[in-house]
Amino acid sequence: MRTASGTPIAVVGLGRMGRLHADNLATRVAGARLAGVADVDEPVARELGERHGVPWSTSIDELLAKPALAGIVIATPSACQPELVKGAADAGKHIFCEKPLGLDVDSCAEAVAAVRACRVRLQVGFQRRFDPGWQALKATLDTGLIGELDLLRCTHRNAAPPPDPDGLGDLFRDMSVHDLDSARWLAGEPSEVYATEVAGGDAAIVSLRFESGAAGVIDLHRSAGYGFECSAELVGSDGTIRCGAPRLPDAAELLRAGSATVPLTRDHAERHAAAYIGELEHFAAVAAGFAEPVVTGHDALAALGLASTAALSAAAGVPLAAEEHAARAS
Amino acid sequence: MRTASGTPIAVVGLGRMGRLHADNLATRVAGARLAGVADVDEPVARELGERHGVPWSTSIDELLAKPALAGIVIATPSACQPELVKGAADAGKHIFCEKPLGLDVDSCAEAVAAVRACRVRLQVGFQRRFDPGWQALKATLDTGLIGELDLLRCTHRNAAPPPDPDGLGDLFRDMSVHDLDSARWLAGEPSEVYATEVAGGDAAIVSLRFESGAAGVIDLHRSAGYGFECSAELVGSDGTIRCGAPRLPDAAELLRAGSATVPLTRDHAERHAAAYIGELEHFAAVAAGFAEPVVTGHDALAALGLASTAALSAAAGVPLAAEEHAARAS
Amino acid sequence: MRTASGTPIAVVGLGRMGRLHADNLATRVAGARLAGVADVDEPVARELGERHGVPWSTSIDELLAKPALAGIVIATPSACQPELVKGAADAGKHIFCEKPLGLDVDSCAEAVAAVRACRVRLQVGFQRRFDPGWQALKATLDTGLIGELDLLRCTHRNAAPPPDPDGLGDLFRDMSVHDLDSARWLAGEPSEVYATEVAGGDAAIVSLRFESGAAGVIDLHRSAGYGFECSAELVGSDGTIRCGAPRLPDAAELLRAGSATVPLTRDHAERHAAAYIGELEHFAAVAAGFAEPVVTGHDALAALGLASTAALSAAAGVPLAAEEHAARAS
Amino acid sequence: MRTASGTPIAVVGLGRMGRLHADNLATRVAGARLAGVADVDEPVARELGERHGVPWSTSIDELLAKPALAGIVIATPSACQPELVKGAADAGKHIFCEKPLGLDVDSCAEAVAAVRACRVRLQVGFQRRFDPGWQALKATLDTGLIGELDLLRCTHRNAAPPPDPDGLGDLFRDMSVHDLDSARWLAGEPSEVYATEVAGGDAAIVSLRFESGAAGVIDLHRSAGYGFECSAELVGSDGTIRCGAPRLPDAAELLRAGSATVPLTRDHAERHAAAYIGELEHFAAVAAGFAEPVVTGHDALAALGLASTAALSAAAGVPLAAEEHAARAS
Repeated sequence: MRTASGTPIAVVGLGRMGRLHADNLATRVAGARLAGVADVDEPVARELGERHGVPWSTSIDELLAKPALAGIVIATPSACQPELVKGAADAGKHIFCEKPLGLDVDSCAEAVAAVRACRVRLQVGFQRRFDPGWQALKATLDTGLIGELDLLRCTHRNAAPPPDPDGLGDLFRDMSVHDLDSARWLAGEPSEVYATEVAGGDAAIVSLRFESGAAGVIDLHRSAGYGFECSAELVGSDGTIRCGAPRLPDAAELLRAGSATVPLTRDHAERHAAAYIGELEHFAAVAAGFAEPVVTGHDALAALGLASTAALSAAAGVPLAAEEHAARAS
Repeated sequence: MRTASGTPIAVVGLGRMGRLHADNLATRVAGARLAGVADVDEPVARELGERHGVPWSTSIDELLAKPALAGIVIATPSACQPELVKGAADAGKHIFCEKPLGLDVDSCAEAVAAVRACRVRLQVGFQRRFDPGWQALKATLDTGLIGELDLLRCTHRNAAPPPDPDGLGDLFRDMSVHDLDSARWLAGEPSEVYATEVAGGDAAIVSLRFESGAAGVIDLHRSAGYGFECSAELVGSDGTIRCGAPRLPDAAELLRAGSATVPLTRDHAERHAAAYIGELEHFAAVAAGFAEPVVTGHDALAALGLASTAALSAAAGVPLAAEEHAARAS
Repeated sequence: MRTASGTPIAVVGLGRMGRLHADNLATRVAGARLAGVADVDEPVARELGERHGVPWSTSIDELLAKPALAGIVIATPSACQPELVKGAADAGKHIFCEKPLGLDVDSCAEAVAAVRACRVRLQVGFQRRFDPGWQALKATLDTGLIGELDLLRCTHRNAAPPPDPDGLGDLFRDMSVHDLDSARWLAGEPSEVYATEVAGGDAAIVSLRFESGAAGVIDLHRSAGYGFECSAELVGSDGTIRCGAPRLPDAAELLRAGSATVPLTRDHAERHAAAYIGELEHFAAVAAGFAEPVVTGHDALAALGLASTAALSAAAGVPLAAEEHAARAS
Repeated sequence: MRTASGTPIAVVGLGRMGRLHADNLATRVAGARLAGVADVDEPVARELGERHGVPWSTSIDELLAKPALAGIVIATPSACQPELVKGAADAGKHIFCEKPLGLDVDSCAEAVAAVRACRVRLQVGFQRRFDPGWQALKATLDTGLIGELDLLRCTHRNAAPPPDPDGLGDLFRDMSVHDLDSARWLAGEPSEVYATEVAGGDAAIVSLRFESGAAGVIDLHRSAGYGFECSAELVGSDGTIRCGAPRLPDAAELLRAGSATVPLTRDHAERHAAAYIGELEHFAAVAAGFAEPVVTGHDALAALGLASTAALSAAAGVPLAAEEHAARAS
């Protein structure tokens, strides 16, 4: 059981991202515990609160009033967020705010000023900074392995527009903020922006010049159909590094001196991290009486019997019938 | 916070796999809670128990004596496991046992008989059955898309032998049991086994005939150096499906009628599942006062400012300087 | 032996590309025969002419004077080409001219006008139009499978600048003409161009708008170090298609409806086209007394002996020693 | 035009492979010229002879009687080949013989003895020895980079059985001889063979032990449907190397010390070798009056116009309309 000492964090705004964050806080974030949820839609707030056994409310103020609360995740429609950030800052809570922080620069600047004035911390939800592939790009660039950065290329594709596009902002504010943050993170501050929008606002190309002298380009499509993609490439004077290719989403590929290199899976713990959780999820259901094992003692006996037969065959140098052990295992 | 109603499960045997299971139960398995740990090595048991805030012991019997305990994970040296399974079954606990269940068929058969007699459930740790790639092989075969199965091929490689090989059994009992279980799961019962062992017992090839009329081959190496791999291929009369390739570990690739097809990432939630947890792990540390945000309000303002400039550029049809917004964002 | 009836074609300008074309005409282009070579550098012209046993000259006029000559390949420094094209057109020869046709639009327009006036044919060396991957992009777009084209993306990289950059023109005239031709071929006429040049003229990004309403982007680097790449992507309303990826240079990959598909090798003739030529190149040297066979009768006997042993083993169901056949084969 | 001094080589047996070899000798093998063809089927022999403008016959003896003939390619049904090899050896001609040399070891041994007695050379058609991927495996193994060889794995698949299977021999003699030759080439002499045949003789697994102490496995399927594959893997004590994967047929991939590396395309000449031939094939047809250019002067003008506009845009820092150049180019 996660210990009660996990940092207590609440979530306000229970749309897709808010529910995802609440579920993660409740079950997968080792250092945190979900300490409350709020949404203007009462049934939504109640359902999630009851499911996770935490306080729920239709008002963020009720959550903010709890002295024990250390931090709050804000995931409401973007236009509302700057005001909520100010309120949370006034209440002295640390803030995690979904991207984009808001839809206009002025209200966001006010929110950021309030955060500073109240001496709380604000983290923004540009999750690529936590993605292994993008992190490998940054780390490789920083080591100097690819030399000086000349070109940055980002591809960002959604399979389909969000079901509820209201309040998300246009293609630039909704999608390209991710790429623009990545561009700044990897290539420094841009000095010039040139954008072309096509496909009725569903696709665009953004050209960038950076203060460093590098150039960049971002291409965006929000109904590309085939799936989700966010991939990038850094072309340097001594090499190139890429991440996010559809067939290689988690790894970064280094192209240098005539060859392309990708890291390999280190061990079973890395390769099967999800499977090791999945098998215990299933066993928890078995132990609670809700499910039957999918890998039984019969299976274990059969596999061990075959392994023993294989060891015997290797020693004897002849093929052996498997039936004897199969019989015993049944 | 994970609710107290998660199924209470303890872990006995706190080597590599036991600690991995205990950590998963404590922090990542939504339906369970870690209810205790035991190991014959007292400092090991105490350290892990205190870290997770759960009861610890040097004796499994102390754990089994708790009526509230629903299940137990057994991850001791393989040779000890059958006896511990019997004890847990006698205590009426459901059992998750690491592979191999034991090192000889007789003691395992006794343990399985005890499980049956005590009417508890036993699940065995063949985690590939919970791996998306292997599951896709099974599902595709079951749909009939590749026709009748003719050949099964499994490759199983470790980068290096385990640091503590004592008690693990030989290459066949330690490694090939996974492949033999997979082979049975995918191709049914084998009727004949022929094995060749080389490289001083570090590598082997196991040929199989199945009752279905199919043939199979498993190749094993436990010090392949390059990393960990478990990959497989099913060749059927109408198509072939593969999983576990080093560059594509999570997906299954279907080869049929002149083309190869792999599934693509559906959406950001699938693509960034780990990043979404990572960013909240970091924020939990921020909210607890242990860390600084890595994506700040300044970053959010800068990205939004650039997105606004991009939208303006798209509307005006000219490149725009980025400096104005950059200035405001600082 | 190639028949003497192959179309007689000469080559003028024997730099890298001219020599490549001359060698191809002499040995690999089934429908042609090399009918002469010319270069202002006499030793170069003589060496190549003598090697291929064809007339050589330091003057294109001498070649053009031959009535039997059907066509001429022009591969001189770009700036000289328009004048040579005019001369060849006046002589009534069909013309294959390397890209770029010239370095300024005016002289090229005059050359094209001369070609029209003289009723000869002019083909220009944009070889991507003959590349299977790029052809697959065009064909797939034309079938309508990816819907209406929204975005076109081209990446063009050289490992290093040419050793003799004089006369090649800048990055745009030398490299981007390929991409601009590809863009026109695939997406129709552009209506707007915006270019950014960085890295001291070694790298650039070119943004395009097309009359169709699509947008495009070309990125260029002429000292990318890792190797040569020309890859492209077409993003349509119903799917995406890509070609030229470093690991998949010859195939086009279709991304559509949640999966990515690539064609597979059809048969041994396709897979081993080069090896089938290579083994006969080697045998020609063997038959001429210059080389020894690399696959001998001993090898054939040994392989057949093993195959026979395998057939026997399959029939008998036991492993068999290979030594008997090995002995006979030696 | 290929010079008349190419080594004169004839082909006997004009089935699929014989025609392929004859076409290669006539048009693509730089060091050879096709000097005659023979087949027992007169129309087949006549058609091919006339197409290539070379002597044809229904009798190999007529070809062998020509003193100028240096070598002969034998590609008849396998069972006939040993006798033809003897005849060619008696006539003092060097011999290239398709695989398998024959269907039984005795007659092949007689043929090989005749070759030796007559002091001619015999090369056998195991074309993998000329394949860049397989050559890279051999070269990498020989450098010692992967250490001592422990395991060899070969996969060999045909999409469908040959249309005319008569005279080809069983799965082992027809298909596995390739793999057994590769196995000997890469791993040395086998000491033990164990084979399992399934799917009505359409699929098999062959386990090998080598004198070196290594083990190997070959899997075969002759109606795998998806296409043709011949891939291989060498697992050594210090690394692993693979070739022939469906998506990467021409390159060898090295797995070592935690990463996988593949070579990249060096330059445009390597990348576009086929396209450079294809464009001249087309131009030969243009120059002969059979075809129209697919890349015209208009295309060249348009691309150069756009490149000039791009250069102007880069200098001026503004987007420019493409229309002016487009107008001039038309």
